[in-house]
Amino acid sequence: MEAKLDPEVLKTAAAHDGPIETDAVVVGAGPVGLFQVFELGLLEIKAHVIDSLPHPGGQCVELYPDKPIYDIPAVPVCTGQELTDSLLKQIEPFGATFHFGQEVTTVQRQDDGRFFVETSRGTRFLTRTIFIAAGVGAFQPRTLKVEGLDKFDGTQLFYRVKSPADFAGKNLVIVGGGDSALDWALNFAQDGPHQSESVVLIHRRDGFKAAPASVAKMRELCESHQMQFLVGQVTGFEEEDGRLQGIKVTAADGVTRVVPLDVLLVFFGLSPKLGPIAEWGLDIERKQLVVDTEKFSTSVPGIFAVGDINTYPGKKKLILSGFHECALAAFGAAPFIFPDKKIHLQYTTTSPKLHKVLGVETPVFD
Amino acid sequence: MEAKLDPEVLKTAAAHDGPIETDAVVVGAGPVGLFQVFELGLLEIKAHVIDSLPHPGGQCVELYPDKPIYDIPAVPVCTGQELTDSLLKQIEPFGATFHFGQEVTTVQRQDDGRFFVETSRGTRFLTRTIFIAAGVGAFQPRTLKVEGLDKFDGTQLFYRVKSPADFAGKNLVIVGGGDSALDWALNFAQDGPHQSESVVLIHRRDGFKAAPASVAKMRELCESHQMQFLVGQVTGFEEEDGRLQGIKVTAADGVTRVVPLDVLLVFFGLSPKLGPIAEWGLDIERKQLVVDTEKFSTSVPGIFAVGDINTYPGKKKLILSGFHECALAAFGAAPFIFPDKKIHLQYTTTSPKLHKVLGVETPVFD
Repeated sequence: MEAKLDPEVLKTAAAHDGPIETDAVVVGAGPVGLFQVFELGLLEIKAHVIDSLPHPGGQCVELYPDKPIYDIPAVPVCTGQELTDSLLKQIEPFGATFHFGQEVTTVQRQDDGRFFVETSRGTRFLTRTIFIAAGVGAFQPRTLKVEGLDKFDGTQLFYRVKSPADFAGKNLVIVGGGDSALDWALNFAQDGPHQSESVVLIHRRDGFKAAPASVAKMRELCESHQMQFLVGQVTGFEEEDGRLQGIKVTAADGVTRVVPLDVLLVFFGLSPKLGPIAEWGLDIERKQLVVDTEKFSTSVPGIFAVGDINTYPGKKKLILSGFHECALAAFGAAPFIFPDKKIHLQYTTTSPKLHKVLGVETPVFD
Repeated sequence: MEAKLDPEVLKTAAAHDGPIETDAVVVGAGPVGLFQVFELGLLEIKAHVIDSLPHPGGQCVELYPDKPIYDIPAVPVCTGQELTDSLLKQIEPFGATFHFGQEVTTVQRQDDGRFFVETSRGTRFLTRTIFIAAGVGAFQPRTLKVEGLDKFDGTQLFYRVKSPADFAGKNLVIVGGGDSALDWALNFAQDGPHQSESVVLIHRRDGFKAAPASVAKMRELCESHQMQFLVGQVTGFEEEDGRLQGIKVTAADGVTRVVPLDVLLVFFGLSPKLGPIAEWGLDIERKQLVVDTEKFSTSVPGIFAVGDINTYPGKKKLILSGFHECALAAFGAAPFIFPDKKIHLQYTTTSPKLHKVLGVETPVFD
């Protein structure tokens, strides 16, 4: 799977090669996106799957990997991770290609009827059909809500660390109380190739979601003056000649102080956003893609929407409904891929053709 | 479960008591009927389930109990029996009552808006809603296709043995090559309370689907002249004064002979028939019940149809589609049962209320 390669290598490879030509691109590798691969596979349609997360499972794995789910039909109980694992096993025969850690940024209809699709990492596709199984949207970093601060995004304000070397030797302020905030604080505060000039960690309370060992290590570094920790919330900033000079931190007692900095790193976790999908020209109703219930087609022929991201009369945001939508969307897509072929419904229990596709033997019964 | 009691006891009980008052009757205990119980249960609606077969599982168990199914989402492979067992386990918390071995014969709207439902065994219900999950229809015996023979049905021609004592001391002709035919032939040919005067077994070829041990025993009884076996097909009959006197059996060489009899027992297996549902006044299209895709309601408000028996634009006869239909039908039915209650979608992963309904503990997470 492509996802195992280094992202930078991928980016380079994508830039040098032509677009990947394919019959189907599935946007979203949550349970519904994975099952879309299965339903396409039964019709002998190969798929490329794109997800903003670095792994399959979508919100099931991102938001509740260990919580039990009780309403998957014929699965009395499973966790989000187990559900994902079962689906990955089920789609194994179909050899889908996964492109993780990237969002679709561009969708353009070509003269030949196909769609040109490009991701935030520069991966490009020419595809006959698109299946949007993006659930609640792409997972994006929650931002720090301080008016005017966003103008420093990408220059002095960052929500991810792409290249740690960029921050070596700088005065850093890191905001957050989870594993990402603590891990990067420890990384930049300690001896090493990326050690910064100074690190100040800011969190709204003196309690952390991060691993206790990381918290203990942070306190140790504070005691030895290798970093500082402040309890408080970022309420403003100071700038000079267009450069961010410092942030204002207000403590629980109402006292505000200014913390000077070169770079502000914020780790507030990921939150789903519909993102660029909203700009693709599809009919949208209350942030959901409007589909029919026959083929689960959006308002653009060839683009289908399945799972929590779509809406139609009676829609319930249930995983099991997404599964049904995948099946009908696959049949709805077949004419775009095999315009001259009549597709008949076959059953996995009895069809030797489907057994071949699934890579299983057709049992012999009397 | 009621199904474990003797059918005759049930009949008597039903005749003496008033109708069972309930919120929901599910017609069909196949996978979709079972999952309908689950979706109703999540909304705290209790159901009674009726099936023509003596056990749950419907065609999955009747037609392919041991054949693998590959397209149940998140279940890479299972047999029809395993699927049924998983669903039975999943619906355990909801305490549905099963009424097996009976078909619904009557459905009548009452003045108070409820439906009066009666089965072939005299079980009667007053219900607010009905869910038809009857799949390909009720399983009924395949009949012997000889013109005019059906007039003896129930007097000298039988497709089931309800009371073996009725046939003791008679001259029997038994037609068929499966387990039912062989088992009854051996039962009536041998010493015992129901021994008949004579038994002739007729099968179209000298090869059997029945268990080899039964076939061996049959040949042994033929050799000791306790019964006879003829290869051939029933092509006609002889009658006198309105009584069936004998049947004409044509052998592979074209020779026809008459076999005299008192009673003709035919065991050609079960085949599904839409049956009385066709007479309930619901909109039907090519033997399927027409439903909307918002609530999966039939043309009669309060009667829903889910699974293979319904039709709508895009319909595919897939079990996973039936599951989706159950969920939306349950929400569609709620206003009939709780007219003043607003029903919100809750998730089994996070809702303490659903955890209570499911009988599981709400996990505590940080």
